[in-house]
Amino acid sequence: MKQELKGIFFDIDDTLYSTTIFAEKARRSAIQAMIELGLKGAPEALYQELIEVTQEFEPNYGFHFNKLLDRLPKEASSHCNPAILVAGAVISYHDRKFRELALFPDAPPFLEKLSQTNLIRGIITSGLAIKQSEKILRLGLLKYLSGQEAIIISDQVGINKPNPKLFQKALDRFGLAPSETAYVGDNPKKDILPCQQLGIRTIWMDRGGKHSILEPSIKPDYRVESFLEVEEILKKWGVNLP
Amino acid sequence: MKQELKGIFFDIDDTLYSTTIFAEKARRSAIQAMIELGLKGAPEALYQELIEVTQEFEPNYGFHFNKLLDRLPKEASSHCNPAILVAGAVISYHDRKFRELALFPDAPPFLEKLSQTNLIRGIITSGLAIKQSEKILRLGLLKYLSGQEAIIISDQVGINKPNPKLFQKALDRFGLAPSETAYVGDNPKKDILPCQQLGIRTIWMDRGGKHSILEPSIKPDYRVESFLEVEEILKKWGVNLP
Repeated sequence: MKQELKGIFFDIDDTLYSTTIFAEKARRSAIQAMIELGLKGAPEALYQELIEVTQEFEPNYGFHFNKLLDRLPKEASSHCNPAILVAGAVISYHDRKFRELALFPDAPPFLEKLSQTNLIRGIITSGLAIKQSEKILRLGLLKYLSGQEAIIISDQVGINKPNPKLFQKALDRFGLAPSETAYVGDNPKKDILPCQQLGIRTIWMDRGGKHSILEPSIKPDYRVESFLEVEEILKKWGVNLP
Repeated sequence: MKQELKGIFFDIDDTLYSTTIFAEKARRSAIQAMIELGLKGAPEALYQELIEVTQEFEPNYGFHFNKLLDRLPKEASSHCNPAILVAGAVISYHDRKFRELALFPDAPPFLEKLSQTNLIRGIITSGLAIKQSEKILRLGLLKYLSGQEAIIISDQVGINKPNPKLFQKALDRFGLAPSETAYVGDNPKKDILPCQQLGIRTIWMDRGGKHSILEPSIKPDYRVESFLEVEEILKKWGVNLP
C-alpha cells in the first residue's frame, strides 16, 4: 500500500499531556502553601478566587498570586509579607507541576513507534516560546521529533492560532502538501478549523477536556480519545507502523 | 551580665549561603545543556562569554541566555531552535541551582541556637522581592526569623542598599536603638558602611568572596570568617546563647 501521509504535527497542551489536571493540582498546592505561610481563608474559596484571577488575566500574565492577594480582604494577609506568600505559592506551584508533568500514558509508546517511520514529526503550538520549549524538553518530546526545525511556536514565528499561516509555515518548511500532512489537536476552533481550511488532514483529540464542543461548521476527519486510535488511522493512510 | 544586644539582622547572598559557588555551577550546567542540544563552541569559551553577558547586563535581567546566542557567530546555533536552547539552559540552570542551594554549613547550627534566644532575628536584603523571598523559603530560613515582619527586601520598601534608610526601617519596625542592633553582611560598601553611619554594630562576614576588600573609611566592629566567630562576639555582647 502506497503511503499517502508524509508529515504529522501535534499540538502540546491537552493533546500530548493534560494541562487541565496538572494546573489544578499545582494551583491547589500553591493555595495550600500560602495558607501554611499564614494566609487566612478556606482552601476551596481561595482556589475559586484564584481560578477567577486566571480567567480575568492572561494565562501568561506573571502575577496571578499577587492579584489574588490584591482582591482578598486586607485581614486575610495583613500579618504576612506578601512577597513571602507569593514566593511560597510560586515554589509550590512549580515544584508540583514539574514533578507531575508527564505525557498522557498512551503517548510515549505511540510516539516511539512513530519515530521509527519515515514520517516528518513536529509540533505546532501556541504560547510563549520559553514556556512551550520548556514543556517540550521536560516532557521528553524532543527525541521523537524530526529535529528542532520541526518545532513551530506561535510566539517565535509571529503568527498565532487560529491563523492558517501558522500551519502553512510547517508545510513550507518541509515542502509538504496539505493532503500529505496531518495535525492532531484538542481545540476545534484553533486546531481543526484552520487545518480544515488549508486541506490538512485533521484528527481531533477529544478527551472530554474544556474544548470538547464541536460547532457544525468544523468537521475533523476523525475524532479520537487516545493515540491507539491515531495508530489505526495512520495505518489506513498507509503508514507502515512497527 | 546585662544583654546589650536586642536585635540582629543578616544579609542573605554570600553571607548565609554562597551565591558565587552556586551561580558558577549552575551556569556551567546551562552551557552543558545548550551544547547537548546542539550549540557549537568550547565549553570554557562559552562560559566566559556568558560571564561577560552577566557583567554587561543587570543580574536580574531575564534574557542572559538569549543575549549569549545573539553575540555568538551565527554558525554556532543556526541549525538549532533558539527557544529550545534557551529553555534547555534555563531548566538546567534552575534545576542545578535549586538542587545545590544550601546555607553555609556553619549557619544552621548557629541560627538554631540564635532562635532559642530572645533576640529579634531578621533579614535585610537587596534584590527582587520574589527572588529574595524564594531564597528565604528554599534555604529554610523562615523558621529561624522573628516572623515575616522581620524580612526587609529593598524592592518591597522602595529603598536600596547602601541607603541607611533601609537599615533604619528595621530599627523603626521593632523599636530598636542602633546601639542595641547588629548587622552581618559581606559587602563593606553596601552592608557595613551604612550601618556604621547609623551606629548599628557591624560584623563583616569575609569568606574571601568578591567583596573581600576593605577601604580605609569603612570600619566594621568585627571581621569574621564563620558563624562560630559570630557566636563568640554575641557572647561578649551579653547574649545568652544555649
